Amino acid sequence: MASQKNNDKYGYPKLLNNGDYTGAIINTPIKPLDALQTNCTEHMVVWQWDECTGWQAPEIRPYGPLPIMPSASVLQYATECFEGIKIYRGYDDRLRVFRLHLNCERMLKSSLRVGLPAFDPVHFESILMQFGALEAEKWLPSGQTGQTLYLRPTHIGTTAALGLQKPRQSLLYVIATLLPGFSTKGNGMKLLTSPTEVVRAWPGGFGNRKLGGNYGPTLPAHEATLQAGFDQVLWLFGPEGFVTEAGASNFFVVWKTKTGDIELVTAGLDNGTILEGITRYSVLDLARSKSCQMSAWQYHEHILPPLTAVERDFSINEIQDAAVEGRLIEAFAAGTAYFITSVEVIHHQGKDIQIPLPAAGSASYALLIKEWLSDIVFGVQGSHEWTTEI
Amino acid sequence: MASQKNNDKYGYPKLLNNGDYTGAIINTPIKPLDALQTNCTEHMVVWQWDECTGWQAPEIRPYGPLPIMPSASVLQYATECFEGIKIYRGYDDRLRVFRLHLNCERMLKSSLRVGLPAFDPVHFESILMQFGALEAEKWLPSGQTGQTLYLRPTHIGTTAALGLQKPRQSLLYVIATLLPGFSTKGNGMKLLTSPTEVVRAWPGGFGNRKLGGNYGPTLPAHEATLQAGFDQVLWLFGPEGFVTEAGASNFFVVWKTKTGDIELVTAGLDNGTILEGITRYSVLDLARSKSCQMSAWQYHEHILPPLTAVERDFSINEIQDAAVEGRLIEAFAAGTAYFITSVEVIHHQGKDIQIPLPAAGSASYALLIKEWLSDIVFGVQGSHEWTTEI
Repeated sequence: MASQKNNDKYGYPKLLNNGDYTGAIINTPIKPLDALQTNCTEHMVVWQWDECTGWQAPEIRPYGPLPIMPSASVLQYATECFEGIKIYRGYDDRLRVFRLHLNCERMLKSSLRVGLPAFDPVHFESILMQFGALEAEKWLPSGQTGQTLYLRPTHIGTTAALGLQKPRQSLLYVIATLLPGFSTKGNGMKLLTSPTEVVRAWPGGFGNRKLGGNYGPTLPAHEATLQAGFDQVLWLFGPEGFVTEAGASNFFVVWKTKTGDIELVTAGLDNGTILEGITRYSVLDLARSKSCQMSAWQYHEHILPPLTAVERDFSINEIQDAAVEGRLIEAFAAGTAYFITSVEVIHHQGKDIQIPLPAAGSASYALLIKEWLSDIVFGVQGSHEWTTEI
Repeated sequence: MASQKNNDKYGYPKLLNNGDYTGAIINTPIKPLDALQTNCTEHMVVWQWDECTGWQAPEIRPYGPLPIMPSASVLQYATECFEGIKIYRGYDDRLRVFRLHLNCERMLKSSLRVGLPAFDPVHFESILMQFGALEAEKWLPSGQTGQTLYLRPTHIGTTAALGLQKPRQSLLYVIATLLPGFSTKGNGMKLLTSPTEVVRAWPGGFGNRKLGGNYGPTLPAHEATLQAGFDQVLWLFGPEGFVTEAGASNFFVVWKTKTGDIELVTAGLDNGTILEGITRYSVLDLARSKSCQMSAWQYHEHILPPLTAVERDFSINEIQDAAVEGRLIEAFAAGTAYFITSVEVIHHQGKDIQIPLPAAGSASYALLIKEWLSDIVFGVQGSHEWTTEI
């Protein structure tokens, strides 16, 4: 801490000594910013692009700080996007990835949405497979069945120029980290609906792409939600209060309609405000493909009536009505990081909407769908067309 | 370039040699990314914050790459904002800044909007003044009257952790660059209205804050605009086609109303989609304060009728109507970097809206307002309450 006499009239440390500017310039290298906190593996993929020479050969390097110029596009104009991918150590001890080509294609779409260059998603997939194999060897070794390794590809614009323009250079890198396995504890997520004055995404915006710019601006609302004792924001949109995403995951409810049908409902993709989640697609695909296959709708000893999967705008008021009328069956968030996580309460405008929470072994659509997905990613019935062995 | 046999089946360079991963890891340091292109001055301010220890003493260091961890918040979640500030070498050879406290206060608002920590804007102002004095000594020396030095403060979240959370560490840095002086050439900006399917900002979003996330996603539309032969996008909003910003500047028109009044119109700030531009404020303040001061409305030998400054939603159709009916007088963009720049054409849905372009020395509100502002920033009538001498 600076001593009193080195503080300015506001009590802050003085910037410079008595106007002796040259003497005050600090020439030692800046230490890597907050390097100690990382829990990444020791390698990363570094793949550089330049407008003139195209994509260079991708490299594997030790994990460490990236020397980014202060005027770089990514730091000034958020030319950045990312993906989240898991490698699964199956119950048959094999390593698998899940619908990886969808991540690669989405990364391409995200890149283009923010002015970053195109790449071949098939080639990118092969890079991820090779890097995943390298890191899994040490961090997800044989025997760690049911565990996952998380890959985070990130694409950033590195051109060092303050004029607003498409980056002429970029860096696509991939890091890896260990995430805890899927939670099987009984309590679900507590959601708080978003403040009326804050909107996460809008038609014509970029809520359907995995851009950094979708996340930073949610932090004040997220922080307020945590401080109020909830886990995530349930993002509403428009005067109708349409339900869009839960935190950074897609959101589903299961309810009985007024005519007695059982529906699995999630927001549609038409207006571009919803992330095109791969887990979301998969939940819908599974529910639809099994809709006529009665034997599939059994969770442990419980037989569940098949449901109809529906993508449409639906409002918080519809959820409230369903709860009041005893028609609300379940709700859950879906995404790569959190997989399928049940929601137990939504707090909206001063009132709790209580949602039945499945107990392990009881009848539950969320647990059944989670089991379907889990069986696929961990290869319980051998390899599935949605998985690729590493 | 990699030789043919080192390419994979897609023709790309192979990532790794025959699966010999360990041997393929490259341990040499990554070169600073695109460091050669910079045209910044040789110093920067580095001011670090940590949740536990607060703001450290700000430092002046040689301009150079920042060692940012790959999992840093700014690279993943766009926890970043910036400001643009000019130092003016006055016609009296003094150095001045213009309403600098407004930049500092806006930087604070932007920081909070994206989960970055608060700082004392008054203290930040004193840091900018000291850094500006240091850099101006060499880069804006005595005698370079009418020239400017541009400061770019940038605040980024540096916490290296993939979980979405408020940054626990941040870095506020300031770099400087030389920008060309104000253009006095006769041709104005050519604007192309934004594609109907792309929206820059939304009520409840963050278009009123200077976040990186407002800029990257505009790049595809900006690029298409350049390729179509225009200079900037004119961003429209909503089914009414409300006119919001021109590129990254505020937008003004001067027209005669149907009842014969002369109005200076720009979008209002109520719905939070418009950047709260300091040049914008100043144009409105000047027009209002001089509205009853008839002698002020003279540009060279031309007497101009005073106008009324109005902030409200206004649509591209209103501009079109005014043009057709001969009521459109001028249009211009206003911002720190481009100052006051006349617009000569707006292309909207296949049609050009031609806008009268002021010739130097002819009657012109844009040139008059530019002169008012220019006289203030360059101290033509001595120091003004909006400027501070360095």
